[in-house]
Amino acid sequence: MKKYALLVCYDGTNYGGWQIQKNAVTVQQKLNEAVEKALGVKVTVTASGRTDSGVHAAAQVCHFLAETSVPPERLAAAINFNLPDDISVLKSSEAPENFDATANAKRKTYCYRIYISGRRNPLKDRYAEQIKFSVDLHKLKQAARLFEGKHDFKAYCAAGSQVKTTVRRIYSIKVWTREYRGSTDVEIYITGNGFLYNMVRTLAGTMIYFAADRLKKEDIIRSLEECDRNSVGKTMPAKGLTLEAVDYDFDLF
Amino acid sequence: MKKYALLVCYDGTNYGGWQIQKNAVTVQQKLNEAVEKALGVKVTVTASGRTDSGVHAAAQVCHFLAETSVPPERLAAAINFNLPDDISVLKSSEAPENFDATANAKRKTYCYRIYISGRRNPLKDRYAEQIKFSVDLHKLKQAARLFEGKHDFKAYCAAGSQVKTTVRRIYSIKVWTREYRGSTDVEIYITGNGFLYNMVRTLAGTMIYFAADRLKKEDIIRSLEECDRNSVGKTMPAKGLTLEAVDYDFDLF
Repeated sequence: MKKYALLVCYDGTNYGGWQIQKNAVTVQQKLNEAVEKALGVKVTVTASGRTDSGVHAAAQVCHFLAETSVPPERLAAAINFNLPDDISVLKSSEAPENFDATANAKRKTYCYRIYISGRRNPLKDRYAEQIKFSVDLHKLKQAARLFEGKHDFKAYCAAGSQVKTTVRRIYSIKVWTREYRGSTDVEIYITGNGFLYNMVRTLAGTMIYFAADRLKKEDIIRSLEECDRNSVGKTMPAKGLTLEAVDYDFDLF
Repeated sequence: MKKYALLVCYDGTNYGGWQIQKNAVTVQQKLNEAVEKALGVKVTVTASGRTDSGVHAAAQVCHFLAETSVPPERLAAAINFNLPDDISVLKSSEAPENFDATANAKRKTYCYRIYISGRRNPLKDRYAEQIKFSVDLHKLKQAARLFEGKHDFKAYCAAGSQVKTTVRRIYSIKVWTREYRGSTDVEIYITGNGFLYNMVRTLAGTMIYFAADRLKKEDIIRSLEECDRNSVGKTMPAKGLTLEAVDYDFDLF
């Protein structure tokens, strides 16, 4: 048996998230099936982490164990042949024997996308959340600075999560804005050593509320120092969220 | 009767283009129906120009004549209530009595989008065309300079078109590129006083072929000076094309 790594892109719109479950079609299920059809053996594809229902991935990293004569770099095409149009393997390679896509992940980068518009925009609405109120882009960038570093993100974690620690390190938050003829698109790239359940979506919501003068700087500081859940913004909807990159201590592809 | 103007955004994926026809659902048909439901009167919505099957519009401009007590700025919401999710009226206003969205259009801006990748990318594939071969981004920007100005674009026009003249003026071609972790997205914004049938898609294809060393600078010059059809690139697929803006000599919205 050899260990293989896949770089996978998916549009999460029509899936109940990554992980296999009974009552919804999931990305993991589709990938398991596609690898099985391509190689004729039963496999379980493991990802760097679950993504929630409706969340997208530009570059999810996965591994699986299999015995096959297909050259590693050709696996991508063979698997894609059996995948629906909204999932695509971008790269495939043979991974170190002890590689674990989940346990070895060192950094992840997520992007939360919004567009500021009084009206729904069909060309933006699939991968970004519409914001109808006014947002100060300069304040959005200010908010980013408050979260960088090591903090206890307990206030940003969905209630009931079972984790050892709610402390995480955020390496960087970069805010990209683009204005074209009165319409503004915003991308918030967040890189960290790991994220709690719903953390990115709540972080994005808090930054947006701060930039819309619905939260003060002191609220954000209190949310981090006292883990006060009442000081954070709304948890933003899934469709605006995309897993952009997963980094390891070595090059996989 | 009063004249009204609409700024309309649509995802063209599921439509047979703008203009009403027998064998396909079109954007014009959906808009006519939505305005009729909103106002209870029969109307014909006229656009700045047709868009082909599968082509998108971020900001198509339309007009129609109607008798209504609905305030002009509220028309957008009333019409949107009757439109499918992939068409949205962004703005509505009362237009000058003699306004004609087609005849009065002074400039149009189209964008052709590509992404350079060996594998299909589900997150990009709806509004951009995948290019599998390598493209020199510097040469793409060089190509843009060759087309700006007044030229006879006969070689860039689909055969059989009935037009008085094939001379058009291109005000600017701007090439935006964005690289993120080895993946490159390209946007080609083309602004002109008017475009022939298939002209933008053939222009984009010619620029891309030049940047991929499949056409030479002399080929492009010959295509413009001698209208030589054999010197132009492929007409690119519809899905990568979006009508981004239509300009008039006055502010409509």
